[in-house]
Amino acid sequence: MAVAVSRVPETCRAAKRAARLLARADTAVKDGALEAIALALEERCEEILAANELDMAAGRRAEIGEALLDRLRLDDGRVRGIARAVRQVAALADPVGEVIDGHRLPNGLDVRKVRVPLGVVAVVYEARPNVTIDAAALCLKSGNAIILRGSSSAGHSNLALARIASEAAVSAGLPEGSVSLVAGGGREELAELATQRGSVDLIIPRGGESLKEALQAVATVPVIYAASGNCHVYVDRGAELEMAERIVLNAKVQRPGVCNAAETLLVHEQLAEEFVPRLVAALTGAGVLVRADAASLVLAAGVGGALVEPATEEDWDTEYLAPVIALGLVGSVEEAIEHIARHGSGHSEAIVTGDAVAARAFQLGVDAACVYVNASTRFTDGGEFGMGAEIGNSTQKLHARGPIGLRELCTFKYLVEGDGHVRT
Amino acid sequence: MAVAVSRVPETCRAAKRAARLLARADTAVKDGALEAIALALEERCEEILAANELDMAAGRRAEIGEALLDRLRLDDGRVRGIARAVRQVAALADPVGEVIDGHRLPNGLDVRKVRVPLGVVAVVYEARPNVTIDAAALCLKSGNAIILRGSSSAGHSNLALARIASEAAVSAGLPEGSVSLVAGGGREELAELATQRGSVDLIIPRGGESLKEALQAVATVPVIYAASGNCHVYVDRGAELEMAERIVLNAKVQRPGVCNAAETLLVHEQLAEEFVPRLVAALTGAGVLVRADAASLVLAAGVGGALVEPATEEDWDTEYLAPVIALGLVGSVEEAIEHIARHGSGHSEAIVTGDAVAARAFQLGVDAACVYVNASTRFTDGGEFGMGAEIGNSTQKLHARGPIGLRELCTFKYLVEGDGHVRT
Repeated sequence: MAVAVSRVPETCRAAKRAARLLARADTAVKDGALEAIALALEERCEEILAANELDMAAGRRAEIGEALLDRLRLDDGRVRGIARAVRQVAALADPVGEVIDGHRLPNGLDVRKVRVPLGVVAVVYEARPNVTIDAAALCLKSGNAIILRGSSSAGHSNLALARIASEAAVSAGLPEGSVSLVAGGGREELAELATQRGSVDLIIPRGGESLKEALQAVATVPVIYAASGNCHVYVDRGAELEMAERIVLNAKVQRPGVCNAAETLLVHEQLAEEFVPRLVAALTGAGVLVRADAASLVLAAGVGGALVEPATEEDWDTEYLAPVIALGLVGSVEEAIEHIARHGSGHSEAIVTGDAVAARAFQLGVDAACVYVNASTRFTDGGEFGMGAEIGNSTQKLHARGPIGLRELCTFKYLVEGDGHVRT
Repeated sequence: MAVAVSRVPETCRAAKRAARLLARADTAVKDGALEAIALALEERCEEILAANELDMAAGRRAEIGEALLDRLRLDDGRVRGIARAVRQVAALADPVGEVIDGHRLPNGLDVRKVRVPLGVVAVVYEARPNVTIDAAALCLKSGNAIILRGSSSAGHSNLALARIASEAAVSAGLPEGSVSLVAGGGREELAELATQRGSVDLIIPRGGESLKEALQAVATVPVIYAASGNCHVYVDRGAELEMAERIVLNAKVQRPGVCNAAETLLVHEQLAEEFVPRLVAALTGAGVLVRADAASLVLAAGVGGALVEPATEEDWDTEYLAPVIALGLVGSVEEAIEHIARHGSGHSEAIVTGDAVAARAFQLGVDAACVYVNASTRFTDGGEFGMGAEIGNSTQKLHARGPIGLRELCTFKYLVEGDGHVRT
């Protein structure tokens, strides 16, 4: 029996026991386990696809819709892709044992601040079964035991994937309990998981607002919310129009359904007459619905036709995750900063400008995980940032802000060495 | 009117507005404000002492006891000491703007990870009025607005100190709302403060377990608990006895009422016959009550007399904060690590040994903020660690672990610069 289907507290305690051994596992052993997982996924692909077909059939019966079915679907190519991602994580540098800081105190004590695993990380996720393996790979590489709790709609797929990962990890020398799955997708299990102080060190929810709210109401263990992104692009007076158009289109259109896509476009009013018609033509030409404030509406309406609508106050706070963008005019970079302070979610914010003073004001004044100058918000991503992979994006300020990679799955401890030092 | 005595949400919103300006305040301006505060404390000492006398009189009437009265008491020397501490914080390096990490991505984007203030930090504290100023100095230096909420027993003192700090800060060019005090020490204000999402970025409670529990029940804003320390000293088989005795005595006796004092002593059983009587003589000679497990009791009883008692299971989990120590024998360093994993609070743990293998096993195996080899646990302290000062000690694993200094009062943001970069 590799995957725990026992009750939540037992699963968590077993994970805690595993975590104490995992924290001391050598990099080579952890990397070997990841390779074993990748290999097992490839070798046992049929088993995975058979389990997935059970979920797909249930999904079709429940008429969950083509988009959700596609998120749920596994095939040969996708399973190979998951295995490839595991090997990529294995190739990353091990964060454990890294000396973050160190010095000798005036009294001769040597202090080193050393990165160590958090312990037990619980990942709560919806729909896409590949998260089962992606999250497990990141946690194991960073020396953490992982407890997975997926949605019931992907229950068979998740169970097959977690079982294969757990068995492969144990066969490669990692402790039993390193990977476990909490069966049962009910809110009771979630509440139980979120209150295991002393065994669960962190919960990371990956899902929509309802999951976040459910956790906020009950969690007593630390949570990092991989939260929503209400991202802005501000096109400053000093912007080069061709560059501005390219960045806005990329930030909105390249992949509208993700948290680092732009949701609001702010344009300096001195630029509006020339730029708004041009940009609205480009956006609506790409199928984007533009919800314009009063000042920009007059410039946009003639160009965008039915794809231009008046914005309401609500638009400034809406994460569309769809080909829709709010458009407003501002009188200065300060006004843009002010708008973002009021409506932004602290995820990713961009300015397009040729003006160094405006760029610096924006960087200093905007309080967000990632602040861009002349680049698309779409780069906020652990892979893009050179972290190799990420388990989500944090808009919190404590511990992890922005992409949550291997280092962010760790804490640290101070190792202090003396030769009989006492305090006077 | 410098100190807000308005309702909690208004105070928090004003602090948030101040925080946005404070985040961009130059180091020279912040240091100037700290000097102005130090000076004002010295110049307005009489006003402070008059306010303090009101609290002291009320404390005497309420018969709160000599220990609490002493914690509450201010005099000329203590006020000068508080001013001196403010100047020490001013002399520390400014954490804001520090580049933590930075590199050029393969696509040419430049990414810098830069330290920035958290925003609004609320500090909830009991009894000692000096915390009002200590905490304010650390928050202002790190570019944060501070909201103070002290206990009602020190209400007059805290109000006088906060008013002086706020007025001095504003006179030196910091924004109104940089320092504010929530009047009223009731649980309602605490609950209100702990739920101001969007304006309060962090709450740090400094106080006993009841304060911690009250916060845990209601807080929706992030909290870092400056928690209790159930610290251990393990004397290994390979220890030099003279060094072991010195360290144990220091860890227990030098200042028993603090969180980094030792509460349990574990001794390797091969050492017990020689070491336990010697150590128990020293401890009881220093007035320490020893609560010994069955195996050590026979060795300790003849030496310590009435100051030796049998330990119960409860002793292993008790933070005495008093001249009492639990004593147990273990068969190996692994057994010591196991005991600490079961009963420790993750604060500070020490091994005394001459054996390099045991020392390494202890450092790797113990999961705590600070792990000591051949040194007293008493060194866990921001000042001792070279951070200059601390606002508390965290036993959490996320964000801050160990001393909470200026850097730990900050978060970071990624500043990304390109020249029209879009994601493909």
